Amino acid sequence: MPKLSPYHRDLSYSYAPGVYPSQALLDARPGCARRLLLHSAASSGNGVATLRALCASLGVREETADHALARISKKENCYAAIVFEKFEDGLDAARPHIVLHNPSDMGNLGTILRTCLGFGFLDLAIVRPAADHFDPRVVRASMGALFAMRVHAYDTLDAYRAEHPGHMLYPFMLDSSTPLEKVVSDPKKPFALVFGNEGSGLPPSFAALGTAVRIPHSGRIDSLNLAVAVSIAAYAFSPFAQEP
Amino acid sequence: MPKLSPYHRDLSYSYAPGVYPSQALLDARPGCARRLLLHSAASSGNGVATLRALCASLGVREETADHALARISKKENCYAAIVFEKFEDGLDAARPHIVLHNPSDMGNLGTILRTCLGFGFLDLAIVRPAADHFDPRVVRASMGALFAMRVHAYDTLDAYRAEHPGHMLYPFMLDSSTPLEKVVSDPKKPFALVFGNEGSGLPPSFAALGTAVRIPHSGRIDSLNLAVAVSIAAYAFSPFAQEP
Repeated sequence: MPKLSPYHRDLSYSYAPGVYPSQALLDARPGCARRLLLHSAASSGNGVATLRALCASLGVREETADHALARISKKENCYAAIVFEKFEDGLDAARPHIVLHNPSDMGNLGTILRTCLGFGFLDLAIVRPAADHFDPRVVRASMGALFAMRVHAYDTLDAYRAEHPGHMLYPFMLDSSTPLEKVVSDPKKPFALVFGNEGSGLPPSFAALGTAVRIPHSGRIDSLNLAVAVSIAAYAFSPFAQEP
Repeated sequence: MPKLSPYHRDLSYSYAPGVYPSQALLDARPGCARRLLLHSAASSGNGVATLRALCASLGVREETADHALARISKKENCYAAIVFEKFEDGLDAARPHIVLHNPSDMGNLGTILRTCLGFGFLDLAIVRPAADHFDPRVVRASMGALFAMRVHAYDTLDAYRAEHPGHMLYPFMLDSSTPLEKVVSDPKKPFALVFGNEGSGLPPSFAALGTAVRIPHSGRIDSLNLAVAVSIAAYAFSPFAQEP
């Protein structure tokens, strides 16, 4: 591997910043780990020793990289990171999907990944243009959930639909007539919950693609935060909301 | 008012960065507005003209303040902001409350304010130590929802309980036995949904203070993001989730 670059979406690799996301990477995709970066001030506590042992057993070499770590994580102290090769998965045709149309906020995208994993939605479609799900800021906000998910980026919603024609679509829209609580889904049929951009939502034409749903709220706010909307919907559609 | 300082929690004033939060301030608390700051590159579009007219009618003077605006909003271009006097409200004893115990993340706090307003929870108690709800980053993340809410900070949960002894408490905890879907609340009794810190949650002793609730999720994540947890709970307890 050549000298490490500042992260850029065109690179074939990215960084998992922090012990927890790095651990998640090694658990879910050990074959993608390329290098362990350590800060010279890192103690062996807080999971660093475990990370080093795991990397040693996998043959992933470690190096001290204070400068690279400071660059990867501007806001917080970051004592460890793993350089990983980017990966690509197809979505599981038999499982429910979450579809994000033009999501633009990295923090939202990371939070959504974490929530989806928590509610059993392991398959995420992203329709471009969109925030880069491999950006270290997304990886960090996801707490490493990215590595346990299947994420696939499409150029258009039509490309997604062509690949998964059997999925019932539930576009979430502000002015839809069906409130979330009234939606009855057939648990035997695969479905996809579809969400628009943070600022502009979904194009109105999407309402005709399936059962358009709104999350009812008061008129005192314009809309819910995207990660909040996805989370409420994912929970409502998850088996966890119906546990006996 | 003296020369504007970089924001600090000890100041008696703060900044509402951006047109939308500034507009929300003028709508909800016009008496708190002190000055309108404008960027020299601000056009009259995107709500700036409305903001100027409103400020003129309220006798709030405007000034060009490129440097102060850049300092308030480091990340994004900010063409307008209002300097406002901080305010303090008591909580409404007859309404449901959200209680945040030691919240530390500004973005979460802002998102929570926006969601609470959306689901009709207008009263928020914050137990210190906590992120400063007047910080411009919180104001921005709240999209100005802060100004339409009653927020009160307490030094301890006991201080909150002493003031609102009639509220049934629902502490949200990871290991609670009652899943959210099984909680039956009496809509005639005031209640409070209580949430802990992002990293450490609520102290175990809080479980005995009321009906401890968990939001069921898979074991593949440690916990939900705080703003996500509050949002799912607020929606579930809101009248909007039960609309006819």
